Amino acid sequence: MKAEIIAIGTELLLGQVINSNAAYIARELAASGIDCYFHTVVGDNPERLSQAIAIATSRADLLIFSGGLGPTKDDITKEIIADYLDVPLVDDAESQALIQTYYERKGQPMPESNKRQSQILQGATLLPNENGMAPGSLLEHDGTYYAMVPGVPREMKAMVTNQLIPSLLQVTTDHECLESKILRFFNITESQMAKEIDDIIEKQTNPTVAIYVDGYEVTVRLSAKATSKEKAHDLIQGTEAAIMEQVGDYFYASGTRGMVATAVKLLEETGQSISIAEHGLGGVVTSGVFNHLTDKSRLTTAIIEPVIDSEPDEAKACTIAQQLKTSYSSDIGLACVAGPSEVSTGGFSSKIYVGIVYENQHFSRTIDLSYRREITPEIIQLQVANYLREVLI
Amino acid sequence: MKAEIIAIGTELLLGQVINSNAAYIARELAASGIDCYFHTVVGDNPERLSQAIAIATSRADLLIFSGGLGPTKDDITKEIIADYLDVPLVDDAESQALIQTYYERKGQPMPESNKRQSQILQGATLLPNENGMAPGSLLEHDGTYYAMVPGVPREMKAMVTNQLIPSLLQVTTDHECLESKILRFFNITESQMAKEIDDIIEKQTNPTVAIYVDGYEVTVRLSAKATSKEKAHDLIQGTEAAIMEQVGDYFYASGTRGMVATAVKLLEETGQSISIAEHGLGGVVTSGVFNHLTDKSRLTTAIIEPVIDSEPDEAKACTIAQQLKTSYSSDIGLACVAGPSEVSTGGFSSKIYVGIVYENQHFSRTIDLSYRREITPEIIQLQVANYLREVLI
Repeated sequence: MKAEIIAIGTELLLGQVINSNAAYIARELAASGIDCYFHTVVGDNPERLSQAIAIATSRADLLIFSGGLGPTKDDITKEIIADYLDVPLVDDAESQALIQTYYERKGQPMPESNKRQSQILQGATLLPNENGMAPGSLLEHDGTYYAMVPGVPREMKAMVTNQLIPSLLQVTTDHECLESKILRFFNITESQMAKEIDDIIEKQTNPTVAIYVDGYEVTVRLSAKATSKEKAHDLIQGTEAAIMEQVGDYFYASGTRGMVATAVKLLEETGQSISIAEHGLGGVVTSGVFNHLTDKSRLTTAIIEPVIDSEPDEAKACTIAQQLKTSYSSDIGLACVAGPSEVSTGGFSSKIYVGIVYENQHFSRTIDLSYRREITPEIIQLQVANYLREVLI
Repeated sequence: MKAEIIAIGTELLLGQVINSNAAYIARELAASGIDCYFHTVVGDNPERLSQAIAIATSRADLLIFSGGLGPTKDDITKEIIADYLDVPLVDDAESQALIQTYYERKGQPMPESNKRQSQILQGATLLPNENGMAPGSLLEHDGTYYAMVPGVPREMKAMVTNQLIPSLLQVTTDHECLESKILRFFNITESQMAKEIDDIIEKQTNPTVAIYVDGYEVTVRLSAKATSKEKAHDLIQGTEAAIMEQVGDYFYASGTRGMVATAVKLLEETGQSISIAEHGLGGVVTSGVFNHLTDKSRLTTAIIEPVIDSEPDEAKACTIAQQLKTSYSSDIGLACVAGPSEVSTGGFSSKIYVGIVYENQHFSRTIDLSYRREITPEIIQLQVANYLREVLI
């Protein structure tokens, strides 16, 4: 199967938005063993979109359209494909009910344009949208597959990974099984990873080995094709062992759960409650932990305060953590204290002193981020979560 | 002049590298008033690159190739264009001297592959590379322009901005000034916006009017072309007035600054300090405010606590806000209290009671998000920031 990715949107054509959607879809295709030979970007223009469809149909048998599924007049993707294939658009009851419910709850009438949005091409398989209103779809027509996914990255990603790729694998790999495994690493850059496992990437074809950057984490995805699930697993296992031998020191988990979620899950699994103090960090650690908690009451209390006047250090962080644990009768006291003066481009201090009190033991670490050009809330969340994880295991 | 951007590289096709080069070139073209109707990505494959050239030549009169100018075997851009146009490659003395000097300084012999790298198409104008060895070039052939720039972003950017665009502006006569303005709206969906300003979108060609979704906010971008900046501004102003007449109630700011940043900026401009209490929200409001503060000390203190036991309401939020303002001697006390039981898919309660005490006045609002399928930290940040903004203006 040869794929072509067509991203639709004048904002892409003008360079106002970078076409990261195509890269995401391309990686998903590559990981699934589906070849992709062209990406195209075209604006919200009926004639030129038609031209792009004609060209892609002539050189690919899977066309993946991203964007132009919204409710506005310049969202023309479905209409132009319908025209081109001479297939009518029909109401999709599931999608329409979803949109209707949204407006009913909001106490507003549903705009007529949303009705149009819920339509899909006749005969197409619905790809439900987990994060928005625009439904996706997959249509087979004269031996060519036409997949339509939204342009909003959050909606597109979930749909491509959870809906489109599994659907494609059903129609492409007749008797072959595709299995994937994601290995997650921390405190290693993409380039370092590429250099470390270069030999493995070079010689591997099954499983394929691909390095991804997921936020500030580096992941490696292994995808194996075989006649059975077990054989695919075996193929993955062999390569995984080779990778772990070279970069195992940086490995922390496998799967889709990131660092903060991993640390919070550990906290919940061990049945702990936590109190958090942040000085000069404005709640970034607290909100990161809270967002991933299933049982929100495990966060007993958090105190967010300005930077400490005196010179902070690990001992002070531990003292605060101990006070916190005692005051709020929590199982874990966690204190994060930012260094006082050095402010990075992200507005955060580049040194963070972390103190953790857990099972009557004191743990402390200085997180030094001064090597970074920019410090974001996510980086701080990850680093603190990583330390919490290390303490809990 | 109609341009097409062709980015060459298997790493782009596989999604290992995001095609940010195309966006950069597209922005430069738009700013110079040169239309661009398609972007294409193709791998390091002679046959498919040839196909892409043929297609682009048929629908554009300026082809900008990015990538494939390096010294390695899979750098084939120049060779394939030379083949396609039947124009020979010739040594470029200037480029060759540059490369030779580099190796002389390094005390190494110049590899044969670098000699190949310094060649350009016969008749082409050299576009010198300020940051690397691969020369760029611009060739006119049968009324079509072929521009070649490197794929390394740093080299490409300098060459496009300093060499290519000035060269193109000399040969095009139809270049105009393009000006854009972004209008930001809140509490209106993309569909509602589309419905409200449908007539304006329909009849406008200059400026063009486009609706975008930026996170959870709706923006409208106006882009006008004219012979001068002033004339473009005038065109925008007329349409902007028409839009504001219809949806001005939802407008809150123009430009790229979003809702949370807008509220925080207002807080800083009016010289206020703030204390925040969150019950059952885990620091999402606090961290949102903190991240956008330039002077982080304006956040006096925040207290993050679990959901209140008793039935919360706006009055309780105000009481907490008042206590907070008094305890921490801040100009503003802000309390956000989540409803106790109903937990949405995002893990947050769908009702949030907000109390603000500011200049001895009490303000309160119930934010009801029960119409949403998912409540994310961003939505809560936006809603609370919007209320804070309304109180401050």
